[in-house]
Amino acid sequence: MRAKASDSILLASEEGRGADFVDRIWGKRPTFVCTIGNTETAKIPGISAAGANPAITDFTPAADVELLFYGRCKCIPGVPVTPDGIPTPGLITMSAVGLAKMPVFAVNGGVRVRPIAPYFELDGSPGEDIRTGNAVKDPRKVFDSAVVAGENLASQTDYLVVGESIAGGTTTALAVLLAQGYDAENKVSSSLPVNPHPIKVQAAREGIKKAKFSAAEMREDAMKAVAAVGDPMMPAAAGVIVGAARKVPVIMAGGTQMAAVLSVVRSVEPKALENVALGTTRWILNDKSSDLCHLVKQIGPVPVLGANLDFSSSRFDGLRTYETGIVKEGVGCGGSTIAAICRSEGRLDASKMMHEIDLAYERLMTKH
Amino acid sequence: MRAKASDSILLASEEGRGADFVDRIWGKRPTFVCTIGNTETAKIPGISAAGANPAITDFTPAADVELLFYGRCKCIPGVPVTPDGIPTPGLITMSAVGLAKMPVFAVNGGVRVRPIAPYFELDGSPGEDIRTGNAVKDPRKVFDSAVVAGENLASQTDYLVVGESIAGGTTTALAVLLAQGYDAENKVSSSLPVNPHPIKVQAAREGIKKAKFSAAEMREDAMKAVAAVGDPMMPAAAGVIVGAARKVPVIMAGGTQMAAVLSVVRSVEPKALENVALGTTRWILNDKSSDLCHLVKQIGPVPVLGANLDFSSSRFDGLRTYETGIVKEGVGCGGSTIAAICRSEGRLDASKMMHEIDLAYERLMTKH
Repeated sequence: MRAKASDSILLASEEGRGADFVDRIWGKRPTFVCTIGNTETAKIPGISAAGANPAITDFTPAADVELLFYGRCKCIPGVPVTPDGIPTPGLITMSAVGLAKMPVFAVNGGVRVRPIAPYFELDGSPGEDIRTGNAVKDPRKVFDSAVVAGENLASQTDYLVVGESIAGGTTTALAVLLAQGYDAENKVSSSLPVNPHPIKVQAAREGIKKAKFSAAEMREDAMKAVAAVGDPMMPAAAGVIVGAARKVPVIMAGGTQMAAVLSVVRSVEPKALENVALGTTRWILNDKSSDLCHLVKQIGPVPVLGANLDFSSSRFDGLRTYETGIVKEGVGCGGSTIAAICRSEGRLDASKMMHEIDLAYERLMTKH
Repeated sequence: MRAKASDSILLASEEGRGADFVDRIWGKRPTFVCTIGNTETAKIPGISAAGANPAITDFTPAADVELLFYGRCKCIPGVPVTPDGIPTPGLITMSAVGLAKMPVFAVNGGVRVRPIAPYFELDGSPGEDIRTGNAVKDPRKVFDSAVVAGENLASQTDYLVVGESIAGGTTTALAVLLAQGYDAENKVSSSLPVNPHPIKVQAAREGIKKAKFSAAEMREDAMKAVAAVGDPMMPAAAGVIVGAARKVPVIMAGGTQMAAVLSVVRSVEPKALENVALGTTRWILNDKSSDLCHLVKQIGPVPVLGANLDFSSSRFDGLRTYETGIVKEGVGCGGSTIAAICRSEGRLDASKMMHEIDLAYERLMTKH
């Protein structure tokens, strides 16, 4: 099988289905969709690393989208970095979409800072702090529009890769997964050196308690869980995925945040699960402080694929640091890399990817 | 040649290039883009018929987009109609995109009323009355984002069909064409029984006089003409067309409004003219009160194609009235019909189209 023949794609869960999925997309032409949102949850002290300080997390999704469209950010100087100076995984995505010549579309679930670039508007609102128990306004409306966008985007491409950029997203993911009744405590990942599980769990529990829906209602209906303790990226991503999966395969590109999106997809249209795979990075699969496969297995028999990225021989500190497993995923970097590998029919491998990303990083760093 | 073999597509200007263009898109898979905007110009008494009263013209573009996505309007009951009760040409477009299974995308240049549907946001603003001489805010920004959207939309489709919906658009078209130095007086069409040329000319002249740019500046730079006396649909449509025409053929679907868009396209990227055709209706080509071909010829050697639609044997008064030539074009109905005919390799003809539109109209009228 192709996936097995390629060392560049790891089959982490549901190996048979995963290999079949890779076979179906091998050599085919993907389209990349980046879903974005903001949540006040990102500003809870100690929660998020996506942006060097809490106020700047609002800019991260817009900056990531600009990076994909223009090869540079417009709304901020440089690129988004963590407090430790690690550059956004959007750099990886940028290289992958460029190598595979994927068309790129941004979908706004609800942001405070809009990208200086075209994006699909679904008339969603930025998310509130999940501790309010009232985090997302009318997710169903956003979801419904996103389904229409997903169907139309899918109708002239071989398959879709759907990523996300939202700071604070693993905490909202935890909260939605808990509200949906999954065993998710200490299972979501983080882009901080020490995964702040206790802070996340506390925020999630507080939100769930404050929600106007009963525990049973939120377990039954993912839209209620999202409305209470989710984020605005979720209904946008879930809608695009559901709409597209009616026509073509979909790589849900992300880490544990995509597990929460998967629970929404399953709740609204279980059949969609037959046409999707999670696509993430080796760094997520190797992470000792989270467990993506455990989360996905509870939701359904969906394969988990990993891009075997390796930055250990990068020329740059900022990129080599990825090997420490601090920043592990984001902006669909794993899934888009898998798509680029499949598009090249395996000619592109992890070391070539690293070389490309080194060049892109160098270009960006010397420009500013 | 195929276009000549088909009675359903009229070659109205630059016949040779037009026939070549049809050859290039014959049997191919199109994507439809509807660009929308609002302008206060529509509310000048006697200007527009798109909507039964001036206040309601704000809803027309949103309602047209909803019709394309859902087969019914959401933001208004029924469908947009003229004061004479003639239903929107969006009905024709709806049937054409359905028959050709075209994916549909909406692009918002600047509307007051947003569609209940996904749309590309370019962060444009609704347009002011052109008599202010300051009608469109920052058209260059909107244009630049639209180029990026157009390039991405074009990258996985055989060709693009770009239509528009904006009430008051022929008056803004007149004004931009005059500001660009073209002989356009009494040449733009209307959807009123008597084309109100004097009112349009007066508004256009007033706006041009008030503009902060000199006549030479507006002749030289179409973005200045648009900023002064254009509408927000124009930079959105022109941008999508320029971006897409770098990769694939583009049908500029519309009547005399698209002539103004063509003058913007020519001003910014003349090379794009080699990859576009105007696609309109027989009703526009037969209109004695306007002259699309005369306008286009002044701008460049761009073919004009006409969908040979004929509603004279429709079962419905509202549709038969199209043969009186009151409503002649809109929502890219002519260009999308041409695309549907080409997609079917000529199996779809004018009488089959009419039958389909009759059925769609019946379904819509009985539903409400």
